[in-house]
Amino acid sequence: MNDFALKGNILHTAKMGELEIFPDAYLICADGICQGVFYEPPGQYAGIPVTDYSGLLIIPGMTDLHIHAPQFACRGTGMNAELLDWLNTRVFPEEIRFADMDYAARAYQIFADQMRKSATTRAVIFGTTHRNATLLLADLMEASGLVSYIGKVNMDRNAPEDLLESSADAAASDTRAFIRDVINKRYARTKPILTPRFIPCCGDALLFQLSKIRQEFDLPVQSHLSENPAEVELVKTLEPDAEFYGDCYDKYGLFGGESGTIMAHCVYSSDAEIRRMKENGVRIAHCPNSNTNLSSGIAPIRKYIHLGLRVGLGSDVAGGQTESMFRAIADAVQASKIYWRYINHHDKPLTFAESFYLATKGGGSFFGNVGSFETGYEFDALVIDDSKLPCPRPLSLADRLERAVYLGLDQTSITAKYARGLKIL
Amino acid sequence: MNDFALKGNILHTAKMGELEIFPDAYLICADGICQGVFYEPPGQYAGIPVTDYSGLLIIPGMTDLHIHAPQFACRGTGMNAELLDWLNTRVFPEEIRFADMDYAARAYQIFADQMRKSATTRAVIFGTTHRNATLLLADLMEASGLVSYIGKVNMDRNAPEDLLESSADAAASDTRAFIRDVINKRYARTKPILTPRFIPCCGDALLFQLSKIRQEFDLPVQSHLSENPAEVELVKTLEPDAEFYGDCYDKYGLFGGESGTIMAHCVYSSDAEIRRMKENGVRIAHCPNSNTNLSSGIAPIRKYIHLGLRVGLGSDVAGGQTESMFRAIADAVQASKIYWRYINHHDKPLTFAESFYLATKGGGSFFGNVGSFETGYEFDALVIDDSKLPCPRPLSLADRLERAVYLGLDQTSITAKYARGLKIL
Repeated sequence: MNDFALKGNILHTAKMGELEIFPDAYLICADGICQGVFYEPPGQYAGIPVTDYSGLLIIPGMTDLHIHAPQFACRGTGMNAELLDWLNTRVFPEEIRFADMDYAARAYQIFADQMRKSATTRAVIFGTTHRNATLLLADLMEASGLVSYIGKVNMDRNAPEDLLESSADAAASDTRAFIRDVINKRYARTKPILTPRFIPCCGDALLFQLSKIRQEFDLPVQSHLSENPAEVELVKTLEPDAEFYGDCYDKYGLFGGESGTIMAHCVYSSDAEIRRMKENGVRIAHCPNSNTNLSSGIAPIRKYIHLGLRVGLGSDVAGGQTESMFRAIADAVQASKIYWRYINHHDKPLTFAESFYLATKGGGSFFGNVGSFETGYEFDALVIDDSKLPCPRPLSLADRLERAVYLGLDQTSITAKYARGLKIL
Repeated sequence: MNDFALKGNILHTAKMGELEIFPDAYLICADGICQGVFYEPPGQYAGIPVTDYSGLLIIPGMTDLHIHAPQFACRGTGMNAELLDWLNTRVFPEEIRFADMDYAARAYQIFADQMRKSATTRAVIFGTTHRNATLLLADLMEASGLVSYIGKVNMDRNAPEDLLESSADAAASDTRAFIRDVINKRYARTKPILTPRFIPCCGDALLFQLSKIRQEFDLPVQSHLSENPAEVELVKTLEPDAEFYGDCYDKYGLFGGESGTIMAHCVYSSDAEIRRMKENGVRIAHCPNSNTNLSSGIAPIRKYIHLGLRVGLGSDVAGGQTESMFRAIADAVQASKIYWRYINHHDKPLTFAESFYLATKGGGSFFGNVGSFETGYEFDALVIDDSKLPCPRPLSLADRLERAVYLGLDQTSITAKYARGLKIL
């Protein structure tokens, strides 16, 4: 048994948009599972170790539904380009470097170290097409203590030859080998995920192979969808018979399903595409920082929430400039304000508590019962010390949390971090 | 004589949009004035002390054209409200506290300390209506080493009585006393600026008094203009005879002129207002973070630049969540991308180098020859240590600067800071 309690100011959003606040309370963990929040710990927990974080903020860990590990060295650079140019001039040349295992080891160690220090406890991660480098990434993420899905990327067209898989068959064989490698590693915290890059880089033969692999291993899927107008047009040209962009994935059973699918962006999804996402249970990774940096646009998140689609947040490093999920929360609110002002005045801006929910329980649900402190939820928690921000008067706990997020205290002030009950910081 | 040199990687934008890079060079300061950038220091500077910042980035100090010192405790809180609601529920109650000199001393010390640590070397600052508290703010800013303008705010309508001046005459008398107080202090780095809050809070009698004070003391002016649709409508109701919002200031000689005028925001300026700004030489403080947080909108900065208006950047704490001018640079680029995408596809997004110019020489020109390392410019410099950001490969200096800005290294990694030749960090 590994039972313990944290004492402090506990805040979470078990329900969309409802910030619950428990000042000076106890959060109890037993065997990695949250036992709930208490002002007095129940008798059966008498004597368990209590770590006293009195005065600090205790909140759920964050889920990053969309991040590219090999692009970590690119973050905050080349930000004058739009999506397709940026891929060609910045991203593909960087990803090619991961053929070199020495480079991959240096780069992925930096990535894993930073993810450990971040607010993120759960991440769904793109690697590159390189099987060995991506397996190394999985090793390092397992060692980091985060719980994550790692995808070896598949792509066989419209990119430099050095980055492409040589054929659909070769891609399938390499991908199966990667999946078996991961299974054989018997990781406690790391799983594989199918990762067709996006339709411009994936031909039908490749998608067909992935559909077979999905059936064989019952894997979730991650990819990109309707991110940028030029990309959406390119997909129409490449796949004229598809009903809409997402239909290209759906034809091969890579768009929804029991094992789960995450589609990043969904800025320009048509009504038909949105209906299919809803029917198929496709999850949306909303990446507002990236969508701004690449001049893509603003995804209609209020509409998706209203329609009952499942939405979480993604940092999308390196379209997004930072892995900070606090930044993603604030960015989602900010983007929704501009959306409301200029694009659809019926779609009210996200509130802070709504965006906080998206970053915790919204995205966390991809991992099961993750992202709040409800009883039975996996124990992912952050302790934030905001005392370095001097203030001439006391602030409410709600204001302190909002301030911590807006001022990005996840970059400087995480005192402790737990993922599935394990203290990793 | 106080001559010295800094050695390192020197970057600046002497021309809009043109990032000049001098790797491993010398930046020479004599009596607070920049003597230029050299790969070998000229003979007359042989033997001057050289501080070796080899490997680091040396860039001009930043000018914050618009910041509210008394709102510093509000930053990152209450961000679900729009402008007028937010003023009533968050800002005015906070500003009322500055009647209490103990509170003002605590709050303004925190503000001044943070400004000293920030990337900002020049700031144009709003206080409150309180004369004594605003004088204390001037004392603390003088001590910080920054060069700044400080305004005692004027307002006589549409706010809580505790915050309003009791009459236009009382406001004039108090404002004259404040200006004389500042003059009598004989500060080296701090000057007064006339500060009518904005038209909703300033009646004609008050503006008339300020016009007389302006003539008397030859002072610059700062205020707000065409920030938010509801505010613009309110001004139309309050001042039905004005040609446009800015005309309300112009009627009283508070809109341009030799001594300078800064108008914050200008999101919704009409063509007539823009023409008047251009004719009168009104400067625009672009505050993208604030305009997003308060759901105001996006100012047409590309248009203003194209028309030859004078634009700088403002953090606008606490509509803006942070005093970080690096953040303001990145936000200005990002906002311009969304503007281009959704509002006017003819107005190309700002480049990084253009936005960097706005934060340095663009705003700095309000202070004279400030904001670049051209010979004869006042010596404002920052040394940024980006070595804490590990990277698996060397980056170009241009990429390192862009990354430092996008990742907000001004919050963590300023190694040294000089304002008008004085080392203040």
